[in-house]
Amino acid sequence: MKIAIAGSGAMGCAYGHMLHQAGNQVFLLDNWEQHITNINSNGLQMTEVGQAKVSHIPACRPEEFNQEVDLILLFTKSLALEAMLQQIQHLLKDNTKVLCLLNGLGHTETVSKFVKPENILMGVTVLTASLNAPGKVSFTSYGKTELQNIVANEEAQQMAQEVVATFNKAGLPCEYSQDIQYSIWRKACLNGAMNSLSTILDANMFQVGTYSNTLELIKTILREFLAIAQVEGVTFDVDEFATTTYGFTSPNFSGSVHYPSMHQDLIQCKRRTEVDYLNGYIARRGVEYGIATPYNDLITQLIHAKETILNAK
Amino acid sequence: MKIAIAGSGAMGCAYGHMLHQAGNQVFLLDNWEQHITNINSNGLQMTEVGQAKVSHIPACRPEEFNQEVDLILLFTKSLALEAMLQQIQHLLKDNTKVLCLLNGLGHTETVSKFVKPENILMGVTVLTASLNAPGKVSFTSYGKTELQNIVANEEAQQMAQEVVATFNKAGLPCEYSQDIQYSIWRKACLNGAMNSLSTILDANMFQVGTYSNTLELIKTILREFLAIAQVEGVTFDVDEFATTTYGFTSPNFSGSVHYPSMHQDLIQCKRRTEVDYLNGYIARRGVEYGIATPYNDLITQLIHAKETILNAK
Repeated sequence: MKIAIAGSGAMGCAYGHMLHQAGNQVFLLDNWEQHITNINSNGLQMTEVGQAKVSHIPACRPEEFNQEVDLILLFTKSLALEAMLQQIQHLLKDNTKVLCLLNGLGHTETVSKFVKPENILMGVTVLTASLNAPGKVSFTSYGKTELQNIVANEEAQQMAQEVVATFNKAGLPCEYSQDIQYSIWRKACLNGAMNSLSTILDANMFQVGTYSNTLELIKTILREFLAIAQVEGVTFDVDEFATTTYGFTSPNFSGSVHYPSMHQDLIQCKRRTEVDYLNGYIARRGVEYGIATPYNDLITQLIHAKETILNAK
Repeated sequence: MKIAIAGSGAMGCAYGHMLHQAGNQVFLLDNWEQHITNINSNGLQMTEVGQAKVSHIPACRPEEFNQEVDLILLFTKSLALEAMLQQIQHLLKDNTKVLCLLNGLGHTETVSKFVKPENILMGVTVLTASLNAPGKVSFTSYGKTELQNIVANEEAQQMAQEVVATFNKAGLPCEYSQDIQYSIWRKACLNGAMNSLSTILDANMFQVGTYSNTLELIKTILREFLAIAQVEGVTFDVDEFATTTYGFTSPNFSGSVHYPSMHQDLIQCKRRTEVDYLNGYIARRGVEYGIATPYNDLITQLIHAKETILNAK
């Protein structure tokens, strides 16, 4: 397959590297000059599950790329998605499929402004990767990707299955999902509860779990997620999602001493967060649908206040 | 007047010093050994609005004090009030008046468990004082005290007026209040909005004000305060209280660069906060009265979570 990665940060590079390694023709598109320069000069320096590798993949700014591709992987931060879609409008041909693998809620709507529904695939991944320096990326496990077409017809499903096969062939475990919206909400619930609490409390996940009422608090937050999800045709078990989320705080989970990405963005790097695509989405839709979502409203406001105070960019 | 100060921290010492200086017979009661020892050995070292003074006031633990007094000033932290009342039970004679000057809500109820209503005075002060070391206290302005009897009869009112006169004579500006509950709620609103936001956001008051939606957020918090206050027979103008509170964040207010007491307690000193007597009171009464108070509930939980994470004592 001929594949462009639109947004070649840590995640985009990890996927790009794996797909390139398996023989696909891959192009990395990004707006970070130094990152592009280093990739083109020295190759993409990968640490793939402990193994050092160099992937020689061409990289350039989105506007400079002009080839027709089969598939575009959207891998920006949530805040940058719409701007990226504008930058790659010239690449969106009649047959160009677009797979959105961003965290958070509301992205289908944004992608739909630029891409016809038949060409849209939505996905969720649990792979996590780090960008250690311009041109240098590492990841420690292959995670799992789920994806699905958003239009229910055979052609779209077949196209989705082809992408699933391409990913699996490249060593990226991938499943065709029968209900990708459910998976997207499941991950958004995890991030919406854990990322925001960790960031507001300036605490790692284990520390968040030390408060005696954390599980109940997560349930309260997720009940508002459910109220909005149901209006949008998705339902889930709050207790189940809350228990899964709370599991990440367990001392038995070795990753519990880590800080989630929102904490890294805001507290460590003074960057604006993705809260408007998690708790902020719930608060915004709550107003729209006439559903009270005070917990997520306050969480969103506290994160935005902290962004202002830290002068986050 | 013969006066015992029950809880002789910064505030208790400041009041004790002023009342002693004016010729009243004052006794400082406290549980901090080193503080008592220093006061008895070297006198209470005061910095009274810039002037260094030494007040030779006897100090001891509450249980060790056995004299009959006219008036007891309660000046503990909210969390320590009930324990102090237990410690001074032997001092509560038929004619012993008790004036409670603590910040926060719900103290009338606690005091009423130990003191008969005719003897209770409730008050509010805007004086602020610092305890710089055991036996050393400073304050920078005389503030203003308001107080009122809680039983509406002439004798109680006369007794309150006597205390007002005693304070004024001692250089502590004091007014008899026609509605002390209103004043208590006004101060609780200020503390409930500003202290908790500053603490959660780890920001001084000016920084809290830099977020574009802070005034609206304060109003949202205070609307829940009003809902509870109304059940308890107190009403106020949310916009007015919110505007006053927001005023403390103004760069034109020189004190805006300061951190409120809750921030000092929790973030700086790792001490448990008084949140249960501010936002926590609203959340608790909300459950009791069947009124939704989600903003204050979440604020209370976030503060308690932070107390746990910081291992606050």
